[in-house]
Amino acid sequence: MPTDLAPLALAQALIRCPSVTPAEGGALDLLQRVLEEAGFRVERPVFSEPGTPDIENLYARIGSGAPYLLFAGHTDVVPPGAVEAWRHGPFAGSVEDGLLYGRGAVDMKGGIACMLASALDFVRRDGPDFGGSIGFLITGDEEGPAINGTVKLLDWARARGERFDHCLLGEPTNPSRLGEMIKIGRRGSLTGKLTVHGRQGHVAYPHRAENPIPGMLRLASALATEPLDGGTAHFDASNLEFTTIDVGNPATNVIPADARAVFNIRFNEGWSAETLGAEIRRRLERAAGNAVRFSLDLQPSNAPAFLTRPDAFVDLVAEAIRAETGLTPKLSTTGGTSDARFIKDACPVIEFGLVGETMHQTDECVAVADLERLTAIYGRVLDAYFAA
Amino acid sequence: MPTDLAPLALAQALIRCPSVTPAEGGALDLLQRVLEEAGFRVERPVFSEPGTPDIENLYARIGSGAPYLLFAGHTDVVPPGAVEAWRHGPFAGSVEDGLLYGRGAVDMKGGIACMLASALDFVRRDGPDFGGSIGFLITGDEEGPAINGTVKLLDWARARGERFDHCLLGEPTNPSRLGEMIKIGRRGSLTGKLTVHGRQGHVAYPHRAENPIPGMLRLASALATEPLDGGTAHFDASNLEFTTIDVGNPATNVIPADARAVFNIRFNEGWSAETLGAEIRRRLERAAGNAVRFSLDLQPSNAPAFLTRPDAFVDLVAEAIRAETGLTPKLSTTGGTSDARFIKDACPVIEFGLVGETMHQTDECVAVADLERLTAIYGRVLDAYFAA
Repeated sequence: MPTDLAPLALAQALIRCPSVTPAEGGALDLLQRVLEEAGFRVERPVFSEPGTPDIENLYARIGSGAPYLLFAGHTDVVPPGAVEAWRHGPFAGSVEDGLLYGRGAVDMKGGIACMLASALDFVRRDGPDFGGSIGFLITGDEEGPAINGTVKLLDWARARGERFDHCLLGEPTNPSRLGEMIKIGRRGSLTGKLTVHGRQGHVAYPHRAENPIPGMLRLASALATEPLDGGTAHFDASNLEFTTIDVGNPATNVIPADARAVFNIRFNEGWSAETLGAEIRRRLERAAGNAVRFSLDLQPSNAPAFLTRPDAFVDLVAEAIRAETGLTPKLSTTGGTSDARFIKDACPVIEFGLVGETMHQTDECVAVADLERLTAIYGRVLDAYFAA
Repeated sequence: MPTDLAPLALAQALIRCPSVTPAEGGALDLLQRVLEEAGFRVERPVFSEPGTPDIENLYARIGSGAPYLLFAGHTDVVPPGAVEAWRHGPFAGSVEDGLLYGRGAVDMKGGIACMLASALDFVRRDGPDFGGSIGFLITGDEEGPAINGTVKLLDWARARGERFDHCLLGEPTNPSRLGEMIKIGRRGSLTGKLTVHGRQGHVAYPHRAENPIPGMLRLASALATEPLDGGTAHFDASNLEFTTIDVGNPATNVIPADARAVFNIRFNEGWSAETLGAEIRRRLERAAGNAVRFSLDLQPSNAPAFLTRPDAFVDLVAEAIRAETGLTPKLSTTGGTSDARFIKDACPVIEFGLVGETMHQTDECVAVADLERLTAIYGRVLDAYFAA
C-alpha cells in the first residue's frame, strides 16, 4: 500500500505510533520505510548506557556531495497524562474543525511530517542529483534523559565521516502564529543546591540553637534580587529562579538543623557554567559573611548558552517564512534548552517549526493549514539552499 | 510493707513505673497509696475526649480550711528513646556516684518525690490540724496533648468547690544549680502557617508563571528581622522563629505553585494571642503590598503569656531557697510553656523544682543531694506558709 505523503497524513500516521520516551512505537520504522522508498540511505543505530533504556535512532541521507543540509528532530513524545481528559485520543490522530489533535502534534511529529513531506517532494521534483545532500537526524530520546540520543548520534555520524553544513531543527518555535520566531540560539542552564547549616534546638531556647532559616532567607534573597546581567544583543538577561526551599520540620516547637534550596539559572552567552558558578559562590560568600554557614552543590551542566550568529542561512530561512506567511520572524534565543545545544558543535543550527502553544499539554493540536504552510516553507528553504 | 518515705526511695519507686504518656504505669497508684496512708483524701478522675486517649489523674487534699497550698505536677514522662544508649535502664532507678538515673528523674518524678516527702513529713510532725489545707493536683497528660490533664482537672476541682490560695508547681526550673531560678510566669506561644501563592510554570518562561519563592523570602524576611518588642521588666523580648519552609518541588525545571512556612512566637505580657496575630498580619500585608498573594493561618493558642507578680508568697519561697542553698533565686519568665499557664486562672502559681539540664535527654539524672535539699526547701515553704 503506497503511503500518503501529504503532511497531514504523515503527521497522523506518526501520532498513531505510541512513542512515549523511551518507546520507539513504530515511528522510526515508518520514517525508514518512507525515506527508503524515496531513495534515502537509512541507518538505525541503537545506543545503550548502563542504567538507562536502550534507544533507537535514525540517520538518513540522500546525495553525497556538498552542501549538506540536515533536518533534525525527535519522534519521542512526553506522556499524555490523563487520557480521559483529552478531547480526542492522544494517539488517535483525529481532525476536528481544521485541527489535528494528538500527543506530538506540534512537539514534534507535526514538524517531522512537514520536513519529510517537503524533502520527498523536493527529491521527486529535482531527482537525486540536486547537487548536494539532504539528511535526517532523528532521535527517540529528546524528551527523556537525552543520553542515548542526539549526542551519541552526532558522535556516531562524525566517526563515519559525515560532515554537515547547516542544520534546521524542527522544534515548535512560534509562540502563537506560524512565522513569528526563529530560534538562533538558546540560553544555558545551571542548577544549584544550596544548604544552610544550623543547630537543632527547642524554639523556646533560641540562644542554645542556631536557626538556619534566617540565614537561608538572607542568602536566597541575595541571589533572587541582584540581577546577573542586562542581556546581550541577541539574549535576554540571564535569570535565576528558586524552584524549591525545603526544611521538612513537622514540629512547631523545634528549631531545625538545616534548610535546603534549589535554584535554576537560564544564562546567556556572557557566561559559561564555570564563570557563572564562581559568581554565584562569590555572591553567597558575600551575603553569608561570618554569620551563615552554607554549602553549594552546582550540578554538572550539559546545557551551555550558544548562538548561531545571523548569516546568509538565517536570511534564507527568514525569507522563506516571509514569502509564505508575510511575517518577518523574530530571531530569538528565548525558551528552554533543545538538542540544538549539541548540534551546534557539528554545524551552524537554527530552529523553526510549528506553534508551541499546546506542547506538552492535554489536547495538544496543530492547525492542518499550519502543517501545509510549514511544508511549503521547508520546501522554499530546500529550493533556495540548493539553488545557491 | 511500709513504703520508704525518703525522697530518693520515692523517686526510685516512681521512675520504676513506666508512665510514658498516656500510660499511668502505676505511678498514680503509688501516690494514692502513700497519700492515703498519711491521711489525705484522694480522688482519681479519668478524663476522655474523642480522638485522644483516656487519661488518669489524681487529686488529694488534707485539711479543710484556709490557707490552701496546692502542689502541682505530672507523673507522665517523655519516651526514653534508644534504651541501649542509656548508661542505666531508663526505668531502673539506678544510683551511681551520687546520681539517680532514669526518665523523669528531674522532669518531674524527682520533684514529685520531694513534694511528697516534705508534705508527709510536715503532716507527721504537725498532725492533720495544722490550720489550713495541703493538696496535690497531679496529671498524667502534661508531656502529651495536655487535653485530658490539668485543664479538666482544674474544671473538675472548681465544680466541686475547691478553692486554692497558692500553687507551687514542681517543674525543673534551675538551669544548672539548685536554687538559681524560680519561674514566676511564662511567655505565651503562638504558631502561624504562612502560604504564599504563585502560579506554576516552566523555569525557562518565568514571565508566564509566578514564582512564590521570592514573595516568601520577602514576607519571611520581614517577620524574621523586625523585633516585636524590647521586653518588659519581667520578660525577655518576644521572639519569632521560623520552624520550617517547604515547597516540595522535585523538578528543577518547574516553577512551583505555592510556598509554605511555619513560625512560632514566644511572646511576653505586652501581647495577647489576638493583638500579636493582628500585628503579624499587619506586617505581612505591609511587606506584601500588591506584589505578593499570601494566606495566614494562625493556630488557636492555649498558651497565653502570664505573670505572677512578686509578692509575699514569692518572697517566702525565695527565702526558703536562700536558707537551704545560700543562693538568691532569679525570678524568671524564660523557657517553654508549662501547666502553670492553666493553673494561673485558679490561683497565683510559681514554679520551682530540680535542675533541668538533662530533662528529655538520654541519661536524665538528678543528684541525690538535690533531692534531699529540694525536700528541705519545700519543707521550709510549708512551715513558713502555715506559720503565717
